[in-house]
Amino acid sequence: MRTRPCISTIPPYIPGKLKAGAIKLASNENPRGASPLAMQALEGCVAGVHLYPDNDCGSLREALAARHGCAPRNIVVGNGSDEILQLAAAAFLNPGEAAVTARETFSNYTFVTRLFDGRMSYAPLKNGVFDLDALAALVDGDTRLVFLCNPNNPTGTYFGHAAFEKFLERMPPDTLVVSDEAYADFADADDFPDSVSLVKAYPNLLVTRTFSKLYGLAGLRVGYGIAAEEVADALAKAKISFSVNLPALTAARAALEDHEFVRSSLALNAEGRVWLCGEFARLGLGCYSSQANFICVDVRRDSRDMERKIMERGVTVRPLESFGLPQSLRVTIGTPEQNTAFVACLEKALAE
Amino acid sequence: MRTRPCISTIPPYIPGKLKAGAIKLASNENPRGASPLAMQALEGCVAGVHLYPDNDCGSLREALAARHGCAPRNIVVGNGSDEILQLAAAAFLNPGEAAVTARETFSNYTFVTRLFDGRMSYAPLKNGVFDLDALAALVDGDTRLVFLCNPNNPTGTYFGHAAFEKFLERMPPDTLVVSDEAYADFADADDFPDSVSLVKAYPNLLVTRTFSKLYGLAGLRVGYGIAAEEVADALAKAKISFSVNLPALTAARAALEDHEFVRSSLALNAEGRVWLCGEFARLGLGCYSSQANFICVDVRRDSRDMERKIMERGVTVRPLESFGLPQSLRVTIGTPEQNTAFVACLEKALAE
Repeated sequence: MRTRPCISTIPPYIPGKLKAGAIKLASNENPRGASPLAMQALEGCVAGVHLYPDNDCGSLREALAARHGCAPRNIVVGNGSDEILQLAAAAFLNPGEAAVTARETFSNYTFVTRLFDGRMSYAPLKNGVFDLDALAALVDGDTRLVFLCNPNNPTGTYFGHAAFEKFLERMPPDTLVVSDEAYADFADADDFPDSVSLVKAYPNLLVTRTFSKLYGLAGLRVGYGIAAEEVADALAKAKISFSVNLPALTAARAALEDHEFVRSSLALNAEGRVWLCGEFARLGLGCYSSQANFICVDVRRDSRDMERKIMERGVTVRPLESFGLPQSLRVTIGTPEQNTAFVACLEKALAE
Repeated sequence: MRTRPCISTIPPYIPGKLKAGAIKLASNENPRGASPLAMQALEGCVAGVHLYPDNDCGSLREALAARHGCAPRNIVVGNGSDEILQLAAAAFLNPGEAAVTARETFSNYTFVTRLFDGRMSYAPLKNGVFDLDALAALVDGDTRLVFLCNPNNPTGTYFGHAAFEKFLERMPPDTLVVSDEAYADFADADDFPDSVSLVKAYPNLLVTRTFSKLYGLAGLRVGYGIAAEEVADALAKAKISFSVNLPALTAARAALEDHEFVRSSLALNAEGRVWLCGEFARLGLGCYSSQANFICVDVRRDSRDMERKIMERGVTVRPLESFGLPQSLRVTIGTPEQNTAFVACLEKALAE
């Protein structure tokens, strides 16, 4: 069988490592588990799993629209925000057309671009941050998609509202700007973009969000996009039927109302972020200032070797060679106990 | 925003109608509900939903391989068999290349072909059955995919092992034959294809199966493909990460062991199939002989009008205009009580 040429250029996805008994700080999951309201709702939906789920995701879209102050038709729900990213390429990227992103970022932007026979161009990060000027310089009449990640995975860095709006001003009207905000729930900087307000002004902006991180539903695969109706409709048309299943829809709908879980998860993350940065400083290691639920730390040696040494001591983290940062690790901010255990392992590994 | 030309040619998917309080015989779900072992397993997985699911679907692939007498590397698990169909196009169909299917069949084959800028050619059914000779005559050097549906949705008809093997013999080696066997679990004809044995002989054959029907897991979205390693590997590379979530993987794994549920579901279906055919004969209506969990009945009048009249009386069924059969209805075989209620509604609607 002769596969499409793009298939051979797609690198396999490397998930965060699992090790029995180890503390997993490799995949940016919520260390407190899932939203209790979501778990309760999951138990209640078991009796209905023999019926097809709601293909339109109507109830969840209504709730999300109310949350974000837009209309249900501005929302498209997907199998994680990963599916929304794929739909962006499926709906807008013709074979041979171009896409643009940063070099040191989430690999999925390149995956979906190649899957639809597009050409990806990269601008390196500037001081660990998306270089919006360099990205804009790469955009030409063939560029259909620009993928931004804010805060950026794996650096945790962000660009602000004014810079984002200036960037959008520079974009041609037929270039879709996709801002992947999987980690935006954790951002507390005053100037972090209010992207939903920008969607109203820019019909070529798609913002993606996820229930995998703050709400603790990584195992269920629910994400969504917010965009102008025309864009959201096009994404919905490109979607396979029923891609978000009943437990996922049910749990996400319930999690949205779990204000106490959200509040306490954010507080735990903010405390852990400060504490871990302090520990990295104590150990003489540089790290990027993070707006996310993870930190990117420069270990100044081979990160895969460090990953192994830390894993042997009982904690899994993510080495960033595949992200273009061979001497950095990405560590999820855990509970205080997990963070303390990680720092102890890191310190021993550094001394080895 | 300028969408891809194919997006405007994609008709919206029309799911089976829901009506509060009505008996739903519109979507070929299991009328007995989900496998009890699967439901029990679902309750047990709630505590783990904050963690990403197994991207490789390892445990389920191993169990499926044991069931079908092949290797785990011959199995690819997807978000319903719908995703496997999409992956077939993603992995093998280049822009401008061709696909072939029947005119009166599941619309998803056309959807995935258009999504990858392919051209679809159709051969009409012959006496309600896939016309393998006519399909083979449409295949040329540009044909990358042939979509078969066996038993066919919506007619319930099938082609046998010998005819299938003869068809495979005629196919060029670089044409992937996709046999969608979503309903094959219900087939009891002696000469129904043993497709897994054919996968071993034909490296260009992909067979798809689902947990949505017999196992009663339509709300969870789990399907799979069985193919040569080379084909299965290519499909897996085209897949977005984690598209099958934790509840889906957990329930499907448990359902595979639910032999009692499978046995009693098959018995109920076989009885209902015979009884409904007898009732259609009594009412003077023709129907195709079915190997599935539904029957296609010729109501000899506008099927959307009949659908409405039957729905008003409390049962939802599927009118088949969108399948190219404007005077036929597809009705799921229900419990004896549901079947009796449906026939009573049908009889009144016919007399109206």
